[in-house]
Amino acid sequence: MEKETRRYAGALRKEHIGQNVLLKGWVQKRRDLGGLIFIDLRDKSGTVQIVFNPTVSEEALAIAESVRSEYVVEVKGQVVKRDDATVNEAIETGAIEVFVSNLEVVNKSKNPPFPIQNETDVAEDLRLKYRYLDLRRSSLQETFKLRHRTTQVIRNFLNNNEFLEMETPILTKSTPEGARDYLVPSRVHAGEFYALPQSPQLFKQLIMVSGFEKYYQIARCFRDEDLRADRQPEFTQIDIETSFMSSDEIMEMTESMMQKVMAEVKEVELPLPLPRIKYQEAMERYGSDKPDTRFGMELIHLSDSMKDSSFKVFQSAVNSGGKVALLNAKNQAANYSRKDIDKLTDFVKVYGAKGLAWLKVEGDELKGPISKFLSEEEIEAISSKAEVSDGDLLLFVADKSSVVYDSLGALRLKLGKEMKVIDEGKFNFLWVTDWPLLEYDEDAGRYHAAHHPFTMPMDEDAAKLSTDPANVRAKAYDLVLNGYELGGGSLRIYKKEQQDKMFEILGFTPEQAQEQFGFLLEALEYGAPPHGGIALGLDRIIMLLAGRSNLRDTILFPKTASASDPLTDAPSEVAKNQLDELSIQLKNKND
Amino acid sequence: MEKETRRYAGALRKEHIGQNVLLKGWVQKRRDLGGLIFIDLRDKSGTVQIVFNPTVSEEALAIAESVRSEYVVEVKGQVVKRDDATVNEAIETGAIEVFVSNLEVVNKSKNPPFPIQNETDVAEDLRLKYRYLDLRRSSLQETFKLRHRTTQVIRNFLNNNEFLEMETPILTKSTPEGARDYLVPSRVHAGEFYALPQSPQLFKQLIMVSGFEKYYQIARCFRDEDLRADRQPEFTQIDIETSFMSSDEIMEMTESMMQKVMAEVKEVELPLPLPRIKYQEAMERYGSDKPDTRFGMELIHLSDSMKDSSFKVFQSAVNSGGKVALLNAKNQAANYSRKDIDKLTDFVKVYGAKGLAWLKVEGDELKGPISKFLSEEEIEAISSKAEVSDGDLLLFVADKSSVVYDSLGALRLKLGKEMKVIDEGKFNFLWVTDWPLLEYDEDAGRYHAAHHPFTMPMDEDAAKLSTDPANVRAKAYDLVLNGYELGGGSLRIYKKEQQDKMFEILGFTPEQAQEQFGFLLEALEYGAPPHGGIALGLDRIIMLLAGRSNLRDTILFPKTASASDPLTDAPSEVAKNQLDELSIQLKNKND
Repeated sequence: MEKETRRYAGALRKEHIGQNVLLKGWVQKRRDLGGLIFIDLRDKSGTVQIVFNPTVSEEALAIAESVRSEYVVEVKGQVVKRDDATVNEAIETGAIEVFVSNLEVVNKSKNPPFPIQNETDVAEDLRLKYRYLDLRRSSLQETFKLRHRTTQVIRNFLNNNEFLEMETPILTKSTPEGARDYLVPSRVHAGEFYALPQSPQLFKQLIMVSGFEKYYQIARCFRDEDLRADRQPEFTQIDIETSFMSSDEIMEMTESMMQKVMAEVKEVELPLPLPRIKYQEAMERYGSDKPDTRFGMELIHLSDSMKDSSFKVFQSAVNSGGKVALLNAKNQAANYSRKDIDKLTDFVKVYGAKGLAWLKVEGDELKGPISKFLSEEEIEAISSKAEVSDGDLLLFVADKSSVVYDSLGALRLKLGKEMKVIDEGKFNFLWVTDWPLLEYDEDAGRYHAAHHPFTMPMDEDAAKLSTDPANVRAKAYDLVLNGYELGGGSLRIYKKEQQDKMFEILGFTPEQAQEQFGFLLEALEYGAPPHGGIALGLDRIIMLLAGRSNLRDTILFPKTASASDPLTDAPSEVAKNQLDELSIQLKNKND
Repeated sequence: MEKETRRYAGALRKEHIGQNVLLKGWVQKRRDLGGLIFIDLRDKSGTVQIVFNPTVSEEALAIAESVRSEYVVEVKGQVVKRDDATVNEAIETGAIEVFVSNLEVVNKSKNPPFPIQNETDVAEDLRLKYRYLDLRRSSLQETFKLRHRTTQVIRNFLNNNEFLEMETPILTKSTPEGARDYLVPSRVHAGEFYALPQSPQLFKQLIMVSGFEKYYQIARCFRDEDLRADRQPEFTQIDIETSFMSSDEIMEMTESMMQKVMAEVKEVELPLPLPRIKYQEAMERYGSDKPDTRFGMELIHLSDSMKDSSFKVFQSAVNSGGKVALLNAKNQAANYSRKDIDKLTDFVKVYGAKGLAWLKVEGDELKGPISKFLSEEEIEAISSKAEVSDGDLLLFVADKSSVVYDSLGALRLKLGKEMKVIDEGKFNFLWVTDWPLLEYDEDAGRYHAAHHPFTMPMDEDAAKLSTDPANVRAKAYDLVLNGYELGGGSLRIYKKEQQDKMFEILGFTPEQAQEQFGFLLEALEYGAPPHGGIALGLDRIIMLLAGRSNLRDTILFPKTASASDPLTDAPSEVAKNQLDELSIQLKNKND
């Protein structure tokens, strides 16, 4: 008898029939039947059925009787053809099974707190506490294989394009501009702190000043923010920076990279160039700066027609600088009762809308509570702009522009899902360009950088920086997929005078700018090249490629919504001497 | 005239003569000569000479007059053959130059605080403050290209061997066993802390329990320790873990990986299998657990011959359980004066030696202050064991074993360098195996794990865990190159009972073990496979491959010996409200 070679369970096929094999893995399931024992043996490659038969080995059969789910075993045996009647077409190894001559129990297992199977309704907290068991499920195994492949495709693409992979520090300086930093007390420098980087932004700019010209990093980033379903305290971004390239060149390079990913990971051909849409147009058409273009149902603008409306809500919205717009939910009048529409109204209120007006199209009439306030011309304008037909449901928001965009943008996505008009098989990438450089923060009474303070204004708008900052556009671009922002980038300011000016507009005194960003300002004085780049959220890309809706499924050991890890119990209390060494103490409650 | 294409300066060759090119880069040097201006233009690929000639463009010449070192410029021009007399064989572009028709100053530069040139004697602190300028030096550019290539070779190797690259958390739980943790206060969970990982050890073991079977990560690790020349607060390791593989298989896989690195990065053929040496033998022959085998001069042991010596120092060392050993510095008697030997004595005292005895070989006599205490038989034994010949210098240490090893091991390296017997072109890899599992910590009065508490004892020694822990060997292996530990690994304990036992021997109460490592102990109960791995220090590998002696040269933005960054000024003070949010405060001085 020839010597057994280690084989992967999931890789056994008809062509292995007759071979002696060595398998190592986990007991997925055991069935006793007619004096035989059948086990689904699982390893990283999949599962295969192994059979214990007294005519092959009584000893192995006897041991198999003691075996339970999730035991680790090594088996030797022969691959045999299954009877035609027992062939299982549903699994790739279903044409064969392994007759076991030798079984060794390598390690036992307690009965797991939940079964290791793909479909699960087990509470996420329990699954996170036993993450090492949850990860045995094949859907998660596949997700992390996909994550691995995606990362390698991206690396290969960038390596082939002369990029150098470089590592920037995790222990860095706190720059309170932006999100909240995670801080790390210094032991050597009592009273001082490092911060974990929110992104390698400043370091990658310094790398450009260093002359490396093409940098990338699959970089860990940290933000101490209140978590949402699609946020994690630490996340991974594909971080890219180049010198001497234009926005167009960076976008073209990035979309070629995504084309490669789609081809090699999803076997989907992504036509290039990707569509581009300007920020302002995206807001007007989709009510979103990251539009999901897998379906239509765009916003229909009525402001021009409602300036003089006798319907006060519409008229005053327009005349106080706001907007009136509607969505036409085609053929949905019968599907949405008054009660349903009340729910939609509650939904848009979350986005600041004061209400949701509606009309239903019956024949060629528009019927609903607001119809009586609308003139014939107005009804005509609505009908024609919204291209109504019998059975349509029209939903209106009249408010200041940002509320109209946000509420109708969100409502559009909600309706799209409810109406099942979104093709889930599509991967609609697009670029959003021509972003505003600045956002006015009413609470703070000053401008914030819409992206970050290092973003370059468009040349033709630069002169407006002092006179009309709200209307300065940035050399910035976001990549969007199916309504998710995958990431964004920009060209950066590379002249000190312009960076000084930018800090001034953002309300920094020269001393504050120097204190926080002095090293960057100084670097710009020593021959900084024109440079720019992009950062894409790897976790989110994986989530979309894997067809998942939860970012935690794409991170090996994620944190919960309260930023804790039920598995290791992090964060946790530490010993007082650890704090003493760091010259810190817990804050007195009554301070 | 054809359109110019962007070219890299350092890539221009004779075959480009006649082409119109566009170059973008930095002014390395400017020389004015006979009405012409010559500039060495530098980009990431190297440098090329560009020439401003009034007959080509008076305008470009005029602009060139304003140009200074480190200005960023774009030039258009034509590649021309240099006169035979001006060909510069020393640089790869030396056969050609570029006649400039158009020059644009893209960005200016102040006069840099130090010249951008390879050879430098500028203080390191200044270079770190202007790291972005220091990194422009071609030797550092080359180091980071080498780092990039090495990392990719390693990734390709592991990818081709079915490993998955996976990311483990940076915000983890503090486990005070081992080095000091960097802590991160939690905002959400007041009074609690995350720790930055000293290594992904526990996570990679959990990945094995998850059934992924082959994991790797180029992982950032953190240790808050007092720094030496070859330590950094954050460092990068090639972190590998596998299931179902033996120590031999892991070592073979690792050495194949290093063979690939040496072939592709250094064009050096590394013969396999690598030599292996047991820990005990390494100590006895080289006085080191990471021997530099590029030269001989091994320790020569005399304990057997000195048991009854009338030289008290030797005799009592042996009879109190210690050792007498010597190094024979061949033919060095004339090169080391008494004063020189006094210096060597001071050197070994650092390693705990009380003194350094010596003899010089003159003809067939051994002469020196201790000769009068030694009997003829003892002299004979020394001569024969040390294979002395005329002119040799013999250097003795008699002390407890650990002091003999440490002091002579260090002295051997020092002499090797001083005697110039080390072949700097060699890459001597070897494995050190059969490590002790435990080390007795006299201060703490208990055993420490020599590697970490998860290392598996050798099967044949496991029974001695309770009775004779000092002599239990581990299934552990270190990879050594030219006297540096590149890293090490082991098989891990995968049965809960054995891990419980291990914690008990290390002085943990069951409660303490549960508190710190409960999640691992629990994971071992749910079908943990046999597993093991290795972790190699990437920074150190790069340091050795790049022929450098300073770890900071291999890290893009390193920290100083006091763990600070002179560039960004990290760590630094933070705002009180940042600490308030984290529920911590600086410790009162008088607490």
